[in-house]
Amino acid sequence: MYRKKIIENLEKVRSISPLVHNITNFVVMNNTANALLAVGASPVMAHAAEEMEDFVKIDSSLVVNIGTLSSHWIESMKSAVKYAAEHKKPVVLDPVGAGATAFRTETVKALLDISPPSVIRGNASEIMSIKNAAVKTKGVDSSAASNEALESAKELALELDCVVCVSGETDYITDGKDVLTVKNGSKLMAKVTGMGCTATAVTGAFTAVDDNLLTAAYSAMAVMGIAGEMAAEKADGPGTMQLYFLDALYKIGAEEINTRLIED
Amino acid sequence: MYRKKIIENLEKVRSISPLVHNITNFVVMNNTANALLAVGASPVMAHAAEEMEDFVKIDSSLVVNIGTLSSHWIESMKSAVKYAAEHKKPVVLDPVGAGATAFRTETVKALLDISPPSVIRGNASEIMSIKNAAVKTKGVDSSAASNEALESAKELALELDCVVCVSGETDYITDGKDVLTVKNGSKLMAKVTGMGCTATAVTGAFTAVDDNLLTAAYSAMAVMGIAGEMAAEKADGPGTMQLYFLDALYKIGAEEINTRLIED
Amino acid sequence: MYRKKIIENLEKVRSISPLVHNITNFVVMNNTANALLAVGASPVMAHAAEEMEDFVKIDSSLVVNIGTLSSHWIESMKSAVKYAAEHKKPVVLDPVGAGATAFRTETVKALLDISPPSVIRGNASEIMSIKNAAVKTKGVDSSAASNEALESAKELALELDCVVCVSGETDYITDGKDVLTVKNGSKLMAKVTGMGCTATAVTGAFTAVDDNLLTAAYSAMAVMGIAGEMAAEKADGPGTMQLYFLDALYKIGAEEINTRLIED
Repeated sequence: MYRKKIIENLEKVRSISPLVHNITNFVVMNNTANALLAVGASPVMAHAAEEMEDFVKIDSSLVVNIGTLSSHWIESMKSAVKYAAEHKKPVVLDPVGAGATAFRTETVKALLDISPPSVIRGNASEIMSIKNAAVKTKGVDSSAASNEALESAKELALELDCVVCVSGETDYITDGKDVLTVKNGSKLMAKVTGMGCTATAVTGAFTAVDDNLLTAAYSAMAVMGIAGEMAAEKADGPGTMQLYFLDALYKIGAEEINTRLIED
Repeated sequence: MYRKKIIENLEKVRSISPLVHNITNFVVMNNTANALLAVGASPVMAHAAEEMEDFVKIDSSLVVNIGTLSSHWIESMKSAVKYAAEHKKPVVLDPVGAGATAFRTETVKALLDISPPSVIRGNASEIMSIKNAAVKTKGVDSSAASNEALESAKELALELDCVVCVSGETDYITDGKDVLTVKNGSKLMAKVTGMGCTATAVTGAFTAVDDNLLTAAYSAMAVMGIAGEMAAEKADGPGTMQLYFLDALYKIGAEEINTRLIED
Repeated sequence: MYRKKIIENLEKVRSISPLVHNITNFVVMNNTANALLAVGASPVMAHAAEEMEDFVKIDSSLVVNIGTLSSHWIESMKSAVKYAAEHKKPVVLDPVGAGATAFRTETVKALLDISPPSVIRGNASEIMSIKNAAVKTKGVDSSAASNEALESAKELALELDCVVCVSGETDYITDGKDVLTVKNGSKLMAKVTGMGCTATAVTGAFTAVDDNLLTAAYSAMAVMGIAGEMAAEKADGPGTMQLYFLDALYKIGAEEINTRLIED
C-alpha cells in the first residue's frame, strides 16, 4: 500500500537532491557519502563547532551518528541538534553502541534532552538500551532480534513524539501507533561494516523530501533492503557486496520496487 | 602538444615514487592513499603538529585538503604549509567547501597568507569564493560550471603566483597567462565521493616530479580524466566505478594517453 | 606442520566471533572493520578515553595502530593498553611509521613501557627502528626487506617476552626462539593501502582464540597471505584487489589452506 509512496519519495530525492549534513563516525564516512550520492542526495560531512550553524542553515536534514565518539565531537553534535531544532530541520539519530558503554548511553540521553530527533534508527540492543530495557550488548552489534525491541521502540516513539526504526532481519518502523515492516534485505548486509549507518544516512535524505516521518523512514528502509537484495544476487562475498550495493542504490527505480517489495 | 609531457611525468611518478604527504579529510583518506599507490606514488597521511616538520623534511610534496576541518587540524595545516615553504616543497591546496561557511573561507585565506601554494585545485564555487566572486554554493558541491570560474582562476593565479585548477566537466588549469583544458572524464566520477580530493592528491604526486607547475597539474588532471573514462566503460554504477578507477590509474600508460587524450 | 592449527584457529574465529577492539588510524578503519567481519570476528572501533575501560572489559582482544596519531588518541591508547594488561586481554601493536618521525618512535616506546603487547606486527623498517637498528625509512613504507629485520625481531621478542611479526614478501613470526615463515601472498597487496594494518587487525582476532601467540600470529598471517593470493588471481588492479580480498577472507576454508599453504 506504500509502494507508490516509496517510488514518489525516491524520485523526489533524485530531483531535489537534498543536502544531507552528516556528523558521523570515521569508519563509515566514505560509505555513507557514497550511498547518499548514489541514491541521488548531496552529502556534506562536517563537524567543526565553528561551522555548525552555517551548515544547519543550508542543510536539508541533519544526521547524527555516535559511532566513534570523542568529547569535542559531542559538543558539535549538541550544537547541531540545537540549531536544527531552531531552524526546523529534520534530524536522524543513530545511537551506535548505546548500551555498550555508559559514555554512549549518556551521550544519547544528552542529545535527546536537547531536542528529540525526527527519527531514531538503531539495532535492537541500542533501542532497548535507550528505553533502559534489560539487554546484553556485544560491542556495537546487536545481540537481540529486532522484534524483541518493538515494544521499546513504540514506547520511545510515543515518549519523544518521533519515529523509531529498529533494523534487523525484519525492520520495524513506528511512530508509536502504527508499525510498518520491511522484510527485504540480505544476510550479507550484516557482513559489510556501516550498513546500519548507511541506512541512517539514507533516512536523512528521505526525511528531507517527505514530511510524514513514518513513510519517510519506511521508504528509506525499503530502498535499502531492495538494493541489498539486488547487490547480494551478484555479490561473491562482502567485498563485492559493498560495491554492488552502491551500484544498486544508483539503479533502483519503480520497476525494482514494484517487483521486489515484500508487503505484509 | 603536451601528450609526451603527460607520459613522461607519469613514468617519472612511477620510477621516483614520490612521498606525498597528505593532511586531508576523513572521508577520502582511504581513496586518496589508494589512488596515490595505484598511480605509483608513496602516500603518507599524518596530521600531528608534533611531527609536521619531520614529515615535511622527507616529503616530496604536501597536499592540504580542508574537507573535514577542526581547529587542531588547522594548526597542523598551518605549520605544514610554513615548513613546506622553508624546505621548498611543492604544496597543493584543496579548498573543499570554501564559500559554504565563513569558517572554511577564512581557513583558506589564513593558509594562503602563510605562503601561497604551488597549485590550488577546486571546483568552480570554491575558486570563485576565494576571489570573493558572487557565487551560490550548495554544501561542498559546486553550483557553478567550471568555465564560470575561469576569470577568477586566472586572477587568483596571477595574484598568488601559482597554478589554479578548476575542475568540472571541463577542467581548466592556468598560471594566469596560459590556460590548458582537460575534456576527458566521465559524469559517473561526480557520483563517487572524493574524486576531486583524489585529483588534488594525484596533482601532489605530479608536482613532485615536474618543476613546471602548469604541466604538472595538467598531467595530473589528464591522467585522472582518462582513468575515469577507462573505468566508466566497465562500471555498472558508482560502486564499481570507484574500484575500476583505481585499477585504471594502475594500468594507464602511453597507449591510453595517446589514444584517448582530447586535445584542443 | 601447522596446517591443522591454522584451520582450527580460523574455525574458532568464526564460531566464537571474538570482539576485537581497534584503536586504529583513519585511513584503514573501514578496511580493517570489514576484514574482521569477513573473517568472522566482530569489530569495534572506539577511542574515547571515557569509554576505554568499559570496552576493554568486554573486548576479546585489543588492536592498537599508530598510523594517524595525535596527542589525545595517544592518551586513549595508553589507557587501553593499561586496562588490557589489568584485564589480561591480548594486545596487538602496529607501530606504523616508527622510525619515520621521533614522535612515532617515542609513542611506540611509551606504549611498550606501560606493558609489552602480546604481538607486535610491523614492516622491516618499523621493527628495526624499535630496536634502534640503523634503518632508512621512507614515510610509512618499509625500505628494508623483511629478512633484514629478523635479528631485531628475535631480540625484541626475547626482550619484551612477546611475539614479533615482520611482514614483507616473506613474513617472519618469532617469539625469539622459534621462527615461522609465511611465503604466501601477492605483490598486489602492497598496492592496496592498509593491508599491513589489516594483517594486524586479523592477528587481533586470532590472539583471541589461541593462547599460543606464536601460532595465533602465524595463523593470521597465513590466512592473510592465502586470501591475498586468491584475490590476486581474480583482480585486475589494486581497486578490484581490495574487494576480492574481502571476498576471499570470507570464503577461505580448510580446502584453500590445505592446497595453497607454502610450507618450509
